[in-house]
Amino acid sequence: MPRALVFDAYGTLFDVHSVQTRCEALWPGKGAQLSRLWRAKQLEYTWQRSLMRRYAPFSQVTVDALLFSGEFLALKIEKKEKQALLDEYRRLALYPDVSETFKRLSGCKLAILTNGSPDMIEPLVAQSGLRFDAVLSVDALQVFKPAPEVYQLAVDTLQTPREEIGFVSSNCWDALGAKSFGFAVYWINRAQAPVDRMGFQPDRIVKSLDEILP
Amino acid sequence: MPRALVFDAYGTLFDVHSVQTRCEALWPGKGAQLSRLWRAKQLEYTWQRSLMRRYAPFSQVTVDALLFSGEFLALKIEKKEKQALLDEYRRLALYPDVSETFKRLSGCKLAILTNGSPDMIEPLVAQSGLRFDAVLSVDALQVFKPAPEVYQLAVDTLQTPREEIGFVSSNCWDALGAKSFGFAVYWINRAQAPVDRMGFQPDRIVKSLDEILP
Repeated sequence: MPRALVFDAYGTLFDVHSVQTRCEALWPGKGAQLSRLWRAKQLEYTWQRSLMRRYAPFSQVTVDALLFSGEFLALKIEKKEKQALLDEYRRLALYPDVSETFKRLSGCKLAILTNGSPDMIEPLVAQSGLRFDAVLSVDALQVFKPAPEVYQLAVDTLQTPREEIGFVSSNCWDALGAKSFGFAVYWINRAQAPVDRMGFQPDRIVKSLDEILP
Repeated sequence: MPRALVFDAYGTLFDVHSVQTRCEALWPGKGAQLSRLWRAKQLEYTWQRSLMRRYAPFSQVTVDALLFSGEFLALKIEKKEKQALLDEYRRLALYPDVSETFKRLSGCKLAILTNGSPDMIEPLVAQSGLRFDAVLSVDALQVFKPAPEVYQLAVDTLQTPREEIGFVSSNCWDALGAKSFGFAVYWINRAQAPVDRMGFQPDRIVKSLDEILP
């Protein structure tokens, strides 16, 4: 086992499916389309803002992406619907394999490294019941993943060399960003998608979190 | 009129529709899905690689995105199909409004500023019949749009202050990157999409290229 394990949050530990369910409940027949576009725009905005050097907190980017997506799909998103969807983000459930895996992890430091701003990630971690040595947000650096300085934040905080840190993400581009930086990387390929083509690969590709246990 | 006009290439001057047509001819019923995913991945890879500081030329990124998309959609993309699609990129047609607009542009410098690597953009411009004072590729800087240093390249090459340069793109994120940098920006909203939500707007939103004429 590595000396420290660093986890992505959304989609990796926390299941964002309930957001999709809420979208579908609000706009029957359009929920899947809305949540797909919302997620795609949310990520696009993080990358574009990082490159433009126009950082805004993930909570802001998430609202911007939602409102764009609503306008694109001609769905009327009023204050009430917006709040209901953002509230979901603050009480996401853990994936079923997370709690059991964490019970069996011992002897290594545990951290979260997330795009999520403190106003989003802190209430979420607090209600999860999980314990971490550090909950790190890119907000401290004003740039989003996969910029290398984001991954460096975990090295600096955990006081552990990068090659002794295992990084776990279900987002292939995040796993590859961490690999590019120099972590030992597990990609949780929950959706059974192809590996992104960047000229290098995650160290291990697993289907669920418990497969990272030794 | 501004002292110089700088144009994005793909989707702005050059119509990428023929690539979609070729996709559909090769894989009937799947062409639209393939070309949509291909384009989305092509852009994602440019942003992710820029943030990871793992630049690769746009020609390489374009192939990577195509092969990922083929694998994702379970389409068999052999050397022959790959070559046919890349060849299309080197002989794209101009949008119908381009040649006439260019004839009526006088008294200002004209340039292209593109993500396209020289191996892609140079044959394309050569066969277009258009004349430019400069054809600038991000390849010189090893980072993609919308990083501000890309737009600075036009300022340095054209020896014109940024506020006297008009920038024209049909990609909203590119228009906003140029606006963030300080150009006077025209967004050609060919698809009648909503404006991306970055907290600022293009200076002018037009439906076709001829609307930029005074």
